[in-house]
Amino acid sequence: MDAYTESMERLIEELGKLPGIGRRTAERLAFHLLSAEKDEAKALADAIRDVKTRVGRCAECGALAEGEQCNICASPRRDRSRVCVVEKPSDVIRLEATGGYNGLYHVLGGLLAPMDGQGPERLDVEALCRRASSGDVEEVILALSPTAEGDGTALWVAEQLKGTSVRVTRLARGLPTGAGLDYANTGQLSDALRGRRDMES
Amino acid sequence: MDAYTESMERLIEELGKLPGIGRRTAERLAFHLLSAEKDEAKALADAIRDVKTRVGRCAECGALAEGEQCNICASPRRDRSRVCVVEKPSDVIRLEATGGYNGLYHVLGGLLAPMDGQGPERLDVEALCRRASSGDVEEVILALSPTAEGDGTALWVAEQLKGTSVRVTRLARGLPTGAGLDYANTGQLSDALRGRRDMES
Repeated sequence: MDAYTESMERLIEELGKLPGIGRRTAERLAFHLLSAEKDEAKALADAIRDVKTRVGRCAECGALAEGEQCNICASPRRDRSRVCVVEKPSDVIRLEATGGYNGLYHVLGGLLAPMDGQGPERLDVEALCRRASSGDVEEVILALSPTAEGDGTALWVAEQLKGTSVRVTRLARGLPTGAGLDYANTGQLSDALRGRRDMES
Repeated sequence: MDAYTESMERLIEELGKLPGIGRRTAERLAFHLLSAEKDEAKALADAIRDVKTRVGRCAECGALAEGEQCNICASPRRDRSRVCVVEKPSDVIRLEATGGYNGLYHVLGGLLAPMDGQGPERLDVEALCRRASSGDVEEVILALSPTAEGDGTALWVAEQLKGTSVRVTRLARGLPTGAGLDYANTGQLSDALRGRRDMES
């Protein structure tokens, strides 16, 4: 289009590649950046570059890390007897946000999906077994999505851990906290019934 | 938060400064960029920098330009007898998208807003009068938002052009009165261009 300069057109195109950002939103963001303080735009450009050059994976657990170890594995305040197994690095963030877990993590790197031809070869389960056999670990908590693929993967991981002496648990499931009973589906209600607990008074 | 690395936290913060991007969306975009091809992330960072260093204003009309003149003023195919007055550079893009206008533009740089203490001193109306008096221009089309401020500014610009011999028109109503030009779609803008009327003072 004649009306945009080359640089603006390129910025709009690049912004439009981001997930959930359409052409119109990309235009709005591009105009914002054009009229923003030079420092603000530079800070964003620098932050994008830094993430690509600095952020890697923790050698121990596979979570995001700058350097060899992630902040969680490096922290002396974490409980080393518990390891929480998750699918991907962003799951670590979600669980940390609860403030209710003080153990370590292990990022599997995916889920088994036989229908899509995704077998166990891409999942980092060997390192998990090694950690579970080290003697420090007492409990492995499987925090995978409560879907067919998550459940299948959880069963398979539990199988791999059978040779070790660790206790293997999985996250509770049932009614989604905060939503009304009207909105719960049959699967959620079945799980909630099966997993019912004594009422603490 | 412990769970994010420093670079990721900074990227999420910078993305969250963009209009309409909340914390959760910023996190999603940051994870996308982290796992994107290095080239894609670099292209975005470069595009942001280039826009800030390369894109300026056209010396003639005030629209976006890389170099002295914008693509529209530099084009030999544009009708130099018509000048369309708009508030800001993004309005030029919206009007160009209609494909229904082949003249030149003039970016005013704002609207009169006496209630907010915004007087005429920030508006580039002198250059417009100079262009209107040059002899080439036959018609000045006022394409300002159909709001109180847009209408007030249009009356004031028409007043300033009284000493010249140009015909002063404004976009047809049909634009939803009260909403900004930014929200008009291409069809509404096309109709508004076609139905423009003489400015009555």
